[in-house]
Parts: sequence; C-alpha cells; structure tokens
Amino acid sequence: MEFEESGIGEECGVFGCVAAGEWPTQLEVAQVLTLGLVALQHRGQESAGIVTSNGASPPTYTSHKGMGLVSTAFPPEALLKLRYGNLGICHTRYSTTGFSELQNCQPFVVDTLHGRIAVAHNGELVNARALRKKVMRHGVGLSTSSDSELITQLLALTPPMEELDTPDWVARIKNLMTETPTSYSLLVMFKDVIYAVRDPYGNRPLSIGRLVPISRLHSPGAGEEDTEGWVVSSESCSFQSIGAKYYREVLPGEIVQISRFGVKSLSIVPRPEGDLPAFCIFEYVYFARPDSIFEGQMVYTVRQRCGRQLAIEAPTDVDLVSTVPESATPAALGYAQQSGLPYTEVLCKNRYVGRTFIQPNTRLRQLGVAKKFGVLTDNFAGKRVVLIDDSIVRGNTISPIIKLLREAGATEVHIRVASPPIRFPCYMGINIPTKEELIANKPEFKDIAGYIGADSVEYLTVEGLVSAVQEGISSFQNENVGSHKEVGHCTACLTGKYPIELEW
Amino acid sequence: MEFEESGIGEECGVFGCVAAGEWPTQLEVAQVLTLGLVALQHRGQESAGIVTSNGASPPTYTSHKGMGLVSTAFPPEALLKLRYGNLGICHTRYSTTGFSELQNCQPFVVDTLHGRIAVAHNGELVNARALRKKVMRHGVGLSTSSDSELITQLLALTPPMEELDTPDWVARIKNLMTETPTSYSLLVMFKDVIYAVRDPYGNRPLSIGRLVPISRLHSPGAGEEDTEGWVVSSESCSFQSIGAKYYREVLPGEIVQISRFGVKSLSIVPRPEGDLPAFCIFEYVYFARPDSIFEGQMVYTVRQRCGRQLAIEAPTDVDLVSTVPESATPAALGYAQQSGLPYTEVLCKNRYVGRTFIQPNTRLRQLGVAKKFGVLTDNFAGKRVVLIDDSIVRGNTISPIIKLLREAGATEVHIRVASPPIRFPCYMGINIPTKEELIANKPEFKDIAGYIGADSVEYLTVEGLVSAVQEGISSFQNENVGSHKEVGHCTACLTGKYPIELEW
Amino acid sequence: MEFEESGIGEECGVFGCVAAGEWPTQLEVAQVLTLGLVALQHRGQESAGIVTSNGASPPTYTSHKGMGLVSTAFPPEALLKLRYGNLGICHTRYSTTGFSELQNCQPFVVDTLHGRIAVAHNGELVNARALRKKVMRHGVGLSTSSDSELITQLLALTPPMEELDTPDWVARIKNLMTETPTSYSLLVMFKDVIYAVRDPYGNRPLSIGRLVPISRLHSPGAGEEDTEGWVVSSESCSFQSIGAKYYREVLPGEIVQISRFGVKSLSIVPRPEGDLPAFCIFEYVYFARPDSIFEGQMVYTVRQRCGRQLAIEAPTDVDLVSTVPESATPAALGYAQQSGLPYTEVLCKNRYVGRTFIQPNTRLRQLGVAKKFGVLTDNFAGKRVVLIDDSIVRGNTISPIIKLLREAGATEVHIRVASPPIRFPCYMGINIPTKEELIANKPEFKDIAGYIGADSVEYLTVEGLVSAVQEGISSFQNENVGSHKEVGHCTACLTGKYPIELEW
Amino acid sequence: MEFEESGIGEECGVFGCVAAGEWPTQLEVAQVLTLGLVALQHRGQESAGIVTSNGASPPTYTSHKGMGLVSTAFPPEALLKLRYGNLGICHTRYSTTGFSELQNCQPFVVDTLHGRIAVAHNGELVNARALRKKVMRHGVGLSTSSDSELITQLLALTPPMEELDTPDWVARIKNLMTETPTSYSLLVMFKDVIYAVRDPYGNRPLSIGRLVPISRLHSPGAGEEDTEGWVVSSESCSFQSIGAKYYREVLPGEIVQISRFGVKSLSIVPRPEGDLPAFCIFEYVYFARPDSIFEGQMVYTVRQRCGRQLAIEAPTDVDLVSTVPESATPAALGYAQQSGLPYTEVLCKNRYVGRTFIQPNTRLRQLGVAKKFGVLTDNFAGKRVVLIDDSIVRGNTISPIIKLLREAGATEVHIRVASPPIRFPCYMGINIPTKEELIANKPEFKDIAGYIGADSVEYLTVEGLVSAVQEGISSFQNENVGSHKEVGHCTACLTGKYPIELEW
Repeated sequence: MEFEESGIGEECGVFGCVAAGEWPTQLEVAQVLTLGLVALQHRGQESAGIVTSNGASPPTYTSHKGMGLVSTAFPPEALLKLRYGNLGICHTRYSTTGFSELQNCQPFVVDTLHGRIAVAHNGELVNARALRKKVMRHGVGLSTSSDSELITQLLALTPPMEELDTPDWVARIKNLMTETPTSYSLLVMFKDVIYAVRDPYGNRPLSIGRLVPISRLHSPGAGEEDTEGWVVSSESCSFQSIGAKYYREVLPGEIVQISRFGVKSLSIVPRPEGDLPAFCIFEYVYFARPDSIFEGQMVYTVRQRCGRQLAIEAPTDVDLVSTVPESATPAALGYAQQSGLPYTEVLCKNRYVGRTFIQPNTRLRQLGVAKKFGVLTDNFAGKRVVLIDDSIVRGNTISPIIKLLREAGATEVHIRVASPPIRFPCYMGINIPTKEELIANKPEFKDIAGYIGADSVEYLTVEGLVSAVQEGISSFQNENVGSHKEVGHCTACLTGKYPIELEW
Repeated sequence: MEFEESGIGEECGVFGCVAAGEWPTQLEVAQVLTLGLVALQHRGQESAGIVTSNGASPPTYTSHKGMGLVSTAFPPEALLKLRYGNLGICHTRYSTTGFSELQNCQPFVVDTLHGRIAVAHNGELVNARALRKKVMRHGVGLSTSSDSELITQLLALTPPMEELDTPDWVARIKNLMTETPTSYSLLVMFKDVIYAVRDPYGNRPLSIGRLVPISRLHSPGAGEEDTEGWVVSSESCSFQSIGAKYYREVLPGEIVQISRFGVKSLSIVPRPEGDLPAFCIFEYVYFARPDSIFEGQMVYTVRQRCGRQLAIEAPTDVDLVSTVPESATPAALGYAQQSGLPYTEVLCKNRYVGRTFIQPNTRLRQLGVAKKFGVLTDNFAGKRVVLIDDSIVRGNTISPIIKLLREAGATEVHIRVASPPIRFPCYMGINIPTKEELIANKPEFKDIAGYIGADSVEYLTVEGLVSAVQEGISSFQNENVGSHKEVGHCTACLTGKYPIELEW
Repeated sequence: MEFEESGIGEECGVFGCVAAGEWPTQLEVAQVLTLGLVALQHRGQESAGIVTSNGASPPTYTSHKGMGLVSTAFPPEALLKLRYGNLGICHTRYSTTGFSELQNCQPFVVDTLHGRIAVAHNGELVNARALRKKVMRHGVGLSTSSDSELITQLLALTPPMEELDTPDWVARIKNLMTETPTSYSLLVMFKDVIYAVRDPYGNRPLSIGRLVPISRLHSPGAGEEDTEGWVVSSESCSFQSIGAKYYREVLPGEIVQISRFGVKSLSIVPRPEGDLPAFCIFEYVYFARPDSIFEGQMVYTVRQRCGRQLAIEAPTDVDLVSTVPESATPAALGYAQQSGLPYTEVLCKNRYVGRTFIQPNTRLRQLGVAKKFGVLTDNFAGKRVVLIDDSIVRGNTISPIIKLLREAGATEVHIRVASPPIRFPCYMGINIPTKEELIANKPEFKDIAGYIGADSVEYLTVEGLVSAVQEGISSFQNENVGSHKEVGHCTACLTGKYPIELEW
Repeated sequence: MEFEESGIGEECGVFGCVAAGEWPTQLEVAQVLTLGLVALQHRGQESAGIVTSNGASPPTYTSHKGMGLVSTAFPPEALLKLRYGNLGICHTRYSTTGFSELQNCQPFVVDTLHGRIAVAHNGELVNARALRKKVMRHGVGLSTSSDSELITQLLALTPPMEELDTPDWVARIKNLMTETPTSYSLLVMFKDVIYAVRDPYGNRPLSIGRLVPISRLHSPGAGEEDTEGWVVSSESCSFQSIGAKYYREVLPGEIVQISRFGVKSLSIVPRPEGDLPAFCIFEYVYFARPDSIFEGQMVYTVRQRCGRQLAIEAPTDVDLVSTVPESATPAALGYAQQSGLPYTEVLCKNRYVGRTFIQPNTRLRQLGVAKKFGVLTDNFAGKRVVLIDDSIVRGNTISPIIKLLREAGATEVHIRVASPPIRFPCYMGINIPTKEELIANKPEFKDIAGYIGADSVEYLTVEGLVSAVQEGISSFQNENVGSHKEVGHCTACLTGKYPIELEW
C-alpha cells in the first residue's frame, strides 16, 4: 500500500554535504544537496529546505525553503542563489501536525552569541513538552511547534554563556543529548563543519558516504585520496544518485564531525546501563527505500526474509503468490521462493493517478482505491491467489482490491501480511493513525478476513519479524570506533514496549 | 525504459462517454471523461481537452483544454463548467511536432452549415499533405498543423452542401474514409450522438465499454438493463477506473453509433481486396498499458509470451534473470519461466525522480539515467545476470545501467531485448527518432554489445514477435457484426513494409 | 469612472511592426511589439497575442498567445521564442462574449493555398451573421465565434482560387471590403509585408509611426534616412514608448502596404455616394488614451474643449470644480478654465485596489466603489462642489462617491457629465450594457439627481459634443494621398443613427 | 516620482482590528484586516501577513503570510482559514535588506511562558545591534534579522519570569520602551487584546479608528453606542475603505489597550527631559497617502503648502506650472495658486506599465522611464514650463522626462523640488540609497541643472519645509489624555541631526 493510503508517514529526511579539498570548491554542493533530497523524498513530500555556508570567518549562510516536492520547491533560481556553498545541510518534511506552513520548514537557522548555526532534524523528542516549558521559563519565545527550533534554542542557551572565540559546540551538543534521550538524527552546521549526531538509542538512521570522481566511481578500489567530498544522509539510497560510495553508519549516541579534512568521531554518548539500542523496526518493514543499507544489510533482503518467514508461519494452499505493487514485492518474492508457489503479477499500477477532482457522493467516489490499479485478469482468472501486503493499517485499501480480484475471476483470495498488526502510537517521529483508527484495535479485527472480504488473513509474528531483521546484521568495523555490535530494535507500535519510559 | 528516455512516443488517446436513459442524466459525465483520460495518460502527457454536449436541439457544447497532465489541465472549476454534459469526447496528446501550443489541443470543435461538431483523433493521416492541399484549394484556411482540424474541415465541406434539417454525417464520414485509408481512430460528436470510427486497416485501437451501477460491478452477469452509459476508449484499461465493463472492440473500417439508446454498428468500410488488417504491433510491445485487451488478449500476456519466445531464441548461461523496471517485467517473467532461471530484482526505481534543475557540465550530469534507479546490490553481487529490456531504441539508457550493475558486483551482464530492432520511421501516429538516431542504423550496431558495455546482446526476431502476438488472438463474436477473425499487424518500423504505399 | 465599473469596454487594440533595412534585422521586433501592446492595454486586458515572421520565402511564423495582461501573457521565454521576427503583428483583447478562451485570442493564423497569413482585427463586422452563413455554405467549418477567423476564411476563399506564385492579396482584401462595410481596423501579415486596412467609414482608429534611432529621437528634424522600422497601431500613444515618431493616420477605406522599404498607399475603397465617415466619437470621449492623436488633434485637448462647452451649456453656482480621477480630469480643467472657478482635487485614488476576495453579504461589500477612492476632506469641507465625470452609464458608481463627499462635509454636490447620455447599443466593436441597464433608459432618469443623490445633474448635448470634437480637426496632408478633409463621426450610441442600415 | 524609481522606500505598515460587542462576532474581521492592508499597500509591497485570534482562553491563533501584494498573498482560501478571528493584527512589508524571504514576514508569533503573543512592527530600532547582543547573551537564538523578532524575544524574556495566571504585558512593554527609545509603532496582540504602542519620539505614525454600521457611516453624529469594532493603522487613509471613522492618533510614548470594550490609554512613557517629538517629516513629503491625517492636518494640505512656499522661495518666469504625476500634484497646484501661473498637465501616466521583460542593451532599454509617461504635446509646445517634483533622490528619473518635454517642444524646462535635498542616511525605518548614490552628495550637484538637462533647478529649504509642515498642526484633545500639543519633527536625512545620539 502507498503511504498516503495507509496513513502511516515518516516525518523527515536529512542530508548534508561538505566539499573536500581547497575552497571555494569546484563541487556543485547545492546540486548534490538537491539530488540527495530527491532520493529521500519518500520520507517527506510536504516541504524542503537547504542551507549552505561558504565556510568563511564569519561565514555567509544562504537558505531556500519551499513547499511541495523538491523539484517544485527548488526552481533554478533557488539553486543559483545557493551556488556559492562549500558545505550545506538540507531537509525534507512530512507534516504530522496541522501546521504545514513554510515557517515550520527546516533546516532552522539562528544567530547565537557564538555565531550562526543551522539545524536539520529527523525524529521527535519524547520529552518535547517538558523541554519547551524549560526553554520558555528561561525567557525564550518559541515561534514554531517544531522540535527543530526547540533543539536550536537548547543549543543556544546551554550554559556557560561565555563569549569565546571558539565556542564549544560539541559540549553543547553533548549537553543536549543528556537533556533528551531520543529520538533524533541531527545535522548541526556551524561555519565550516557539520556535526552528525544520532541519539543514544539510535532510533532514527543516519549514514555517511564519500563522493568520488565519476571516472573512479566504477573502479571499486578508489582510495580516500580521491575523495571529492563527504555526505551524510538519513538513508544510504541517496548515495548512488550523487556518485557517492557508502562509508559507514553513524553509531547510536555518536557525534561525528564532518569537515573538509574528513570524518572524525568525537564522542559516543552512552545509553543508561542495560538499555539496548532501539532502531525503529518499521524502517525495515515500510519506510526505507529497498536499496538502503542499515546495520550492514540491504532493506530489500530483510523484506524478502520477512516473506520467507511468513511462508513458514502462515502457508496457504493456493495456485499462485502475488503482491500489492510495489512495496510488498520483495516479501512476495520471498514467500514464493520459500513456498515453491509461482510468483505472478495480478495488479498493475497506473503511474499517473494522482489528485483528480472527483466530487463526493458520486458513483466514481465509490470506486475508491481501485482506480489506482489495473487488473491483469488473464494471469489469475479461475485460480486461487495469496496476496502479500507489507502491512494493513486501516484496512480500507486492501478491501476494494480483494473485490477487484474476485470480480475478475479469482476463486480464492488469501491475504498474508509481512509484518505484525500495529496497535500502539509512536512518539518517536512516525505518524500513525489514532489507536481507534487502527484496524487491529477494532472489534472487526476478530473476523478480519470477513471484514475485508478475504478467504483468510494472517500476519507475521513479532518474533518472526525480529528474527528476520536481526539474523543478517553484521558486526560493525570502523577505524574511528573499532568493532561494534549491539543489536536492538524498537517495536513499540507493535508491542507497546517503548525504549524509554514516557513522561506526560 | 521509460518513454521519455527512449524517444518513442504515442501521439494520442481518445475517450468518449454517452449517458444512457433519461436526460438530463444523473451520471457525472465530465468526471467519467476525466478519469477515462487519466487512464490513457500514458498515451500523451502534453495537453488534454474535453468537449461535452447537453444533447439538446440545438445542442450546447462546452469545452475545456489545458496544457500538461490531466490533473493539471482540469482544475475543479473546469469540471464545474463541464458538468451539464449528457455526452462528451476527450483527448490527451503528445506532440510530435515542435508546436505544443494550446490551439493544437483536441477535440477540435467547428460550426458547420449543419451545426456544431467535435472531433477527437488518434493516428496520423498518411496522405495528410495531399488532403491539406485539396482542402485549401477549395478556399479553406487551416489554422493548425493538426490532422484533427483537417478531418473536421473535410467532414464540413463534403458535398453535397445541402442545408437539410438532418444532415447525413454518416455519409460524410464514409466519404472521409474513402479519401484517407489510415491511420485513425476517430470520435465524432454531433448533438446527441458519438460516432466511433476506426480506419479500414485498424491501425490504431478503439474499444467500447459499458458503465454499470457500482453495486452491480462485482456481479459478473449484469445484463444490459443495468446500463448507466456507454464509453469508448483507445484502450480498455480505462474501463476499470470508471466502473465500466469491457464490451467489444470497434472493428477495422467500422462506423459505430453510440447514443443514449445504445451501440449500433452502422457500416464497415472495406479494405482494398487482398489487404490484411494492420494493427500497430508496437501497441503490444511498448505503448499500451499491460492490462488493456486487444483482439481478445491481454497485453501483459503477449509481453510474457515475447519473453518466453526470447528465451527460446536467445538463451543465456547465467545465474539469474532480471528486468529494467517496470515495462520489461512481463517479458522478464516469461523469460524466467521458459528458461527455468530464477527471477530476481536488481534495480528499484526512484518514483520521485523528475525534473530537477541540474546544470550541464557538472559531475552530476555525468551520472545520467542512473539517478533514476537504485541498485539492489546484495541480490546479484558475484553473479551473472541476464537483463531483459522491452526495446533498445537509441542505446543511451541501457549503457549506464550496465555500468551500475558491474560496479555493484555483477560478474556478467547480458542483454536480451523482447522486440526486434527499430530501423524505419512510422508515418501512422508514432513518434520515432530519426533513422540516424536509431541505434540499429548506426555503424556501432555491428558490435552493439561492445558499444553498450554488455557481455552479449540479442533481440527477438520479427517472426518470433509476430507469432507471440498472433498465437493468442481469439475470433471476434458480436451481435452487430457476427463472427469475425482476420489477423494482420503493421511491422513497418521493424521491416519497412508499410500497409499502404506511401505517396510523397 | 473606470472601465470595469461603467460596463463600457473597447474590444481590442492592434499593433504591427516591420524592421527597415537589411534582414535579419538588429531591431528587437518582438520587444517593440510587446511594448506597443502594453501602451494599448487600456483597449483590452483579457488576452494578448503576437505573431512574427522572418519574412523569408517561405516565411517562418512564430506565435505566442496568453491570457491576462501583456506582462503576464508574455514571460521571457515567449519573447525568446519570438526573437527571430523581422516583422510582426499583435493584438490585445477584451472579450465581449462569454467565451474568453485562449483559442479566441488573436492574431489568427491560417495556412491557405497561397501561404500562411496572420490577421489582427479591431472592430465588429455589422453583417457577421450573414457572412458566417455564406462561408459555411461554402463548406468551411468555423472553429471560433471571432470575426477575426471569419475575416481570415473570407480572405482565403475569395475566388479565383488560382494557385499562383504571387497571390493577389490586395484584390482579396478589396473584395473583403466590398463584402462588409464596417467596422474594422485590420492588420494582415503575409510573408514580408503588413497590409494595414481601415474600413470605408473609418469607424476604428489606425495610425502609422516611424522608428528612429534613440539618439535622433530628440532631434526633431530626423529625416527618413534614419528610419529603423515602421509601426502601425490603434493609437498613436504607443509610439512614444517604443521610440517612434507619429507619421500619419490610415485613411477611411485605405489599404496601406508596410514593408521594409517603407509605407505605400495601395488603394482607397470609397463609401457609398453621400455617406460621411463615421469615426467612433466615444474614442474621444472615453476609450482613447489622452495623449493619442486622431484627425490631427490630441484627445486630451478635445476632452478639455468638452469641459469648456459643458461650462457654457450647464454652469453652476459653486465654490470649486473637481474631477472623478483620472479620466475626467481634462474636462474638469476645461470646465474650471471656462467658468473661472478654482480647480481642486477632492478624491485620490488607491492605486493598489484590485481584486480582493470580499465575500458577498458583508458590510464591506456595501462600501462599494468607495474603497477605491480616498477623500481629501480638508479641500472641500463646508463648500459647494461641482464634480465633472466623463460619462454616467449605469449610475452605480457616482452615487457612492456623492455620499462620500457629503459625509465628508460638502454642502452641495452637483454633477456635470462631459458627454451626452448613452441610450443605444453599439454593433461596431464597443461593449455597452444592455438598453435596460443604461441609466438613461430607466424611469429613474427623469429624476436622475434624486436617484444618485446629487443636487443637480446635467449632461453635455450631442451638438455640444460634436462641435467640441470637430472644431479642432485639421486637414490631412500626405505625400501618398494628397490633401484630405472629410469630417464625420458615429454617434449611434447617443442618437440611434447608425452609419449604415443594420440587417438582422 | 514613483518609489521604485527614486530608491526611497517605507519599510512597513501595520494594521489591527478588534470586534466590539459579543463574540463570536458577526464582523468579518479577516476581511477588514485585508482591506485595511490594501489601503497601506503603498508602505510595503513585498509581503504581507495576518494573524487573528478568537480571543478565547486559551486563544486559538490563525496566521497566513504570503509574498507580493495583498491581493496575491491572500487568496480566498487564506481568508477562509482566518474567518473565525474576533481580533487580529497584520503587516505589510518592504524589505530593506537583501533577505526577502517569507520567514521575515510579520506579524511574528511566539509561544512564551505566559501564552502566545503576536507582534507587528513599523520602524527600526536604533540600538538593534546592542539589543541583539543582549538577547543572545541571555542564550536566545535569533532566527531572523528582523527587529520584530527581537522585540518579541525582548518581551518574552523581560524579568521577572514568574509563571502567573495574569502576566503583566504592560509592564513588559514599558520595560521594552526603556530599552529602546525609537523608532517603532507597534501592535502586540495577546489573547483578546491589542496593545498599540508608539515610541516616545513618535517617529512612526499610528492612528485609531472606529467601525460604525454602514447605514450610520454617512450620518456624522453617530455615537459610540453604534461601534462595531476598533481599528488601528499606520495611516488613517485606511479607515474609509473599511467603513471606519477617524478617532485619534496614538501619542508619542503612549500605550493604548484596544479590547472589545473599547480604547483605553494605559500609560505615556516620557522622553528624556528637553527632547522634542521627532515625527518623520518625510511621511508628509513623500510616504503617506495624501488623504491621511497626521497631527490634525491632511497630508495633501501640507504638500500644497510646500508648493506655495516653494513658489515664494523659488519663483520662475514661465508660462505654466505642471507636475510629475501623481505624487507631486498637490505641490504643483500649490505652486500654481501662489504664483498665479496656470496649472497645466504635460504628462499622462500609463497605468499598465509594469514589469515587462526587456533585454538589456537594446534600443528600448535606452528609452528608460519615459515609457511610463505619455506626453501631452499640445498643452505645452512652444511654451516655458516649470515642473514640480516632490523630491529628487538620484536624478535618474527626472532627466529623461526633461528630454521628452524638450523634444515635444517645450522652450524652457525649469525644475522646482518641493523638499530639500536628501544628504544623510536614515536609521529609523526608511530605506534611502547610500550616501554615494544620493545626487545631493555627488560632485555633479554643483551644476545640477546642467547634469539633468534643466534650465534651472531649485529646492525647498529645510526651514521652508518645517514651517509648511508645522503651521497647520492643531492641538490634540482627547478624553483619555486631555489636551496635548508638542511639536517636533525628524529631519535627519536632510540635516544629519538625529533625534537621539547613535551608538555604533
């Protein structure tokens, strides 16, 4: 199912770039940032912003923000304006609140006693309410409801307010991290440096890549001496579109400094004794692009393993396995491989369906989501079908699809869902429908198959999901931080077990 | 490969709707037309137009045209304006000429001595040049370069110019058909009737559907007594999105009258003795949506058969079969089934890549088409891959993809193309690059594998394609026209054999 | 009163330019056309179009049309597209019909047997209905309701339809002029020539200007050897903004050929014996810009004379004379000069008032037109005012202004109107409210002062207007056509006497 | 001269409205705000913003901001969004800095410990730099360069930071006023109240009006019992367009509370002993609309007096007096009255000239500002002209006008300027070209007449201007604050004498 139908939404994507070598750089930083954002567009389509710095003393910052997709928000004149940047950070946003105004766009830029900083944030501070109160009690007015402004003001007011030549931003970032445990992947730009920060629980992803000359891109062994710049991104899928190579993930709790001289791990802020990391498991299930790499494994591979596991947990006696295109395809292929059933396409997607202005209360409105899909009748008429979906959130999308298939001649339609039912809200950056809207919390869930019109419905178990995710994680080896392997995932929306105790 | 990359383009799609029963109708005709157009959007993205009639004497026609996708061209106020239509025709257009102005948009509406008519046209008149001269010699000025205006003026000036109460439009249409043999699928709206016309060679497709109540949509046996209206469309794929059922194709040479009383075959204009039909074979290979039905068979199925045939004609010794998403997927699955090799995805598409404003001469420009695809490295690293494409027109798209796969670890990359090489221009409505631009006409074609960087390249043969297309055609049975089966396809772009002799 | 309030509207303005000397020209023809149109914007704000020709054999025509003001309709890329023109014609339009679609935009371009022509038209054919029938009977379909298309098709079908190398366009234009007596000022562009045509009654204006080098612009005696190009325009006011000097008017019935070699009078088609010219008197009263020159006199001067005549015909015993800015100011100054009363401003205009989205049925809606004017209270509080207006059409604008002045302390408000009441429709190109809407035809007109709340209201007489207009006309002297003086004006909207008998 | 040509610009206009009586009000507050802003559009055309409050506990604030003119920035859906406001403030802005981004738009809204406040500001804080430092030293980050944000944060952090139910905003405003002496006219909205504040020097204007029923608008004696609401505005010219009556000015240093219960003077913060008020004299000369009232006198009247004084100080021996329309017209009429010379129009303005896309380096570019004006040749050919302008800032506008007049036949052209030369920068809210760009500081100024091509040039003296301004000021009488008359004006841009010592 597409995001817009399911009601689940990622809040944000962040991206940064620092040109290596002499400045002014020949590297087209603003364009690298734009393309990087485009590759993160699935994490937020509402607005986008870029801030660049020339890195001088004092630095000149240039920013542009706009509503809508990156291609709309950044017309050529915006790129022209940003073209003197030697480094920059950017952000794409999906609003979870009603306020979808331009002023909530990130990155957030402020002048502080120690100069201008810019902040881009993916995540949601679990203790935002208390922190807002604290900041306001200090006499600060907050002009937006965004956590990004809150983070910026927290960085600004952290004592001591000494007026030094070299403000200790790292101390301030560390202080911030003690004030709020999760969830954030953060880029802080100051003059000529980007600090890339991931919360101690590692709830949101953040990866580093290395720009190499295009001519060297296809020669696997290109050494660091070729580096044209460094990039940092919510997901590694953005690296390919800008000609960068995957370097490594930022670790939970780590503060990494990225400058034109390279990447340096400054500190790792620890979790409370005994706490495991809590990387959001839904990044694997749903949000991330299939070609992204987390914890050493490709997201596509994890989804395929979920499909295999689903075939073990919930087999069916049918003639063919199919997918709700496109996001469930890896799981469907995994299910087919494990079960030995043939993989067959039953639906094709109309790529031009978008906003059309259909009046309510018409026969066309009743057709619902089916308008988005073409039915490949001849592939399944007279056959029994198991349809794999990646998740069923509200149940209102799968139901008309099942009707379509039956009408076109499917004799049985079984649904297998490659993740467990969502039952709980997320307070760490994911937009989930209210508890009441979630199909798994409704009375109808007892007869979910009858409710959506399927012959049977089964979900992957939480244990099955966790094992499918964790079995492929490789240990982490890095020059800065040595070997590293600590595995743990947040399954709060499935189990109600939040990584830290929530205060209200 | 996507249309925009290959340089091949369909010119148009046409769609019409007549509400059944009493008028003013309750059926939201303008919205049916809009959604019908959206489903034909792959046939033209440059502009769109709708004309509706209230069907009264004299009729009131309302029209709206706009540039861009249907969703852009038809804002809510346009639909409001069109809302009193009881019938209507519409058109979506991809310009093959440099003139992409609004005035070339169809449908074309003119006032004639016998009242106002509206015309929508898919195709290209092979003898347009001579016909333009003829019309102008009669003293008519032509305000556009479009064949649609030419057709309209031909209909208007056909003698006798009697000023009757009931002009004989059918005689005029027949006369037009004697003047020009191909290629056109045509909708002519006059007052309360739509004439649906297909040229004697049946070069362009045209299908009829029946709107049924949504509540009856899912009960297969809904009889004609339930009919809410009739629709006619370039492709049957549009029927599902508006809640219509496939009824039948318009036959080559047939003139069908569609009114609120139903569908009536008025005449079948014959081809010259001995000539076969010449339905464009590239509708199967490339243009049509996979869920459309032509000649009794689903396009997807034909593509799958092409893949199977390709596996027979051009086998490979590799580890896996894959596709260039999304259009080559049916052929790839067919190849996999026939060959027994596992079907594996190696690329994922970034659905948000669109226009971004990348300056020329930058490192990013060099990345080329690769920005559109994510590489699913772990699925094929260390393996030998055969990649199925549906056609290779200019060769500039497949080449960077092969580089991407090699860089990511593919040990061999073989290309198999599920259609023969294009070598000749089309004069019947398809936009094909110039002969010089076609890779098959370049000297490099002798070593095409070396040129694009593949380990091997093979194409489907013309014979293979024709047999894959024709083996599934079922005979045509219809109440109006009886049983009917005559099989023939235009392969001019592959073979240079045009269905009629071209005059210059 | 502003046009939009009064309900009176000019339909169109036409403008053309031919570069002199060698081609390709250095003259920026497209920009001259654009600026020329801007200066005619008061004649039509709905849409605008430009067509240029490179003048070669065969010529390349380029056109651009757009909705709205010239500045909106012609973005930089449109000018770029048009930049290779060596000559061109353009048009700005105010729609009198409901159809305000782009396809009705002029200039109209058609391909004929003898090549492509472009036509721009100001006026309205009095016998359009009969001519449309005639054209359609010939078998021509008409795609718009515009007279411009009709004129173009009439030019195309005029016999004999010989296929000559040098079609005789002048004969065709003459033939057109025998088919329709009025009203039109017409520009016909063919290849490398513009034909400027004015109907035999001279109902609509048309003037010729000469482009000189900017450096010579300020030296009065610049000879023809300096000519950079020739322009032709509905009004001479456009000449100054493009650096052109006034040359002469096109005479009633005259066909003038404008080429890169200069201006040549080809023919003067006569009126029926005894008929006088019928130049629209409202061009002087209302439509034209005050700095335009007609019949040898400046429009401003005529308006001032109307004010003087009004002071003689309808004196008042008041303290000061004022104006409804800005159009009535010349008449008000004339009234002040003649009467000896001081000229004093009582209203200032808010230049930013435009479309704002005020809901109906609110207190703000009741404020009406007053929102457009600021009241200069201190200039008239406690005084008796005579307010000069140029015309009162519906009476709904002046009434709230009178209220404003009284509220601000005027002890008496007398209205004097510098033109006679409009009582009849115009069929020659001017949009006038229906007879029923005209205040002069309503019962309330008997007590017009009471109806609009004034202490007294008086209008200029028809005789007074005609003498004020005609007393300053100078005889016309031109190298091509010799001396020329024949004076006559159309006063049909005031008197019901139309220049030719109307057929229905 | 128009603002855009001269390079002088006002920075802002502010406007507020509170509905009287029961809430929810029937008064369309959002529309009153919009129309009020339109009437202040001459004070800023770059962006506009509105914030409304429903006045409840806690209040709901709604805001909308947009770039461009009010009519562009506030489409119907924006007004719909704002429609539940019972009170609101708004702002229109002309950027003096390069940053013209939406985020700098006012009003500025922030959440503080005591709730949400909104601030709109006209002016410029003379000690902004020091105050920014102070705020940042407190640990606050500033996200814009606007004084409005600075003011808002100063209001938020003023000690004591008690968390009370009824925060003492008036004490905070007073504290702000002790921190910064000038220049500001300020609207602060908190929940159900607007505080209208003017700095102790009264540098920027601020007036209060009373909304009465439209039916009572024209009866002068409407009592307070009819009040529908209260408005506050930078200029009183906005009152008429919304159906409000002028009530009084806010006094220098005064804090006025406007609630649904009426208007209440809370406090008057004094100036340092001996300092006079310093109302910007250029509001009279240039910025304000002529129908606005300051210090009891109409701006138009002051300008007329300047013209009279100029005729005394700098007489000419010519045939007629004229104006550069439209802003210099009152002064020209005053000059004519004093000198006895006839007032005659020599130029008319093309109201449609706006942005057109003229390429540089073309002959059209050389025509310059002359494109904006039509020349009324017959009114002055062969005569000597004195042309009155309101100010000459850079000299590049008047020069081509003089050329136009000479070319059209003026035998002499004398220039008289109704204000003294500008020589110094303004630090209190007015955008003035740099010292180097000011014509009065250039070497050419010695022969200014020769430089701009005039026969003579003379300016009004500073003494003449001051006396023309001050002679008409009436004493101020108000129920809240009693009688009041203290006269003083800022002439810093003319004399270099700033009202307070500037610290850098």
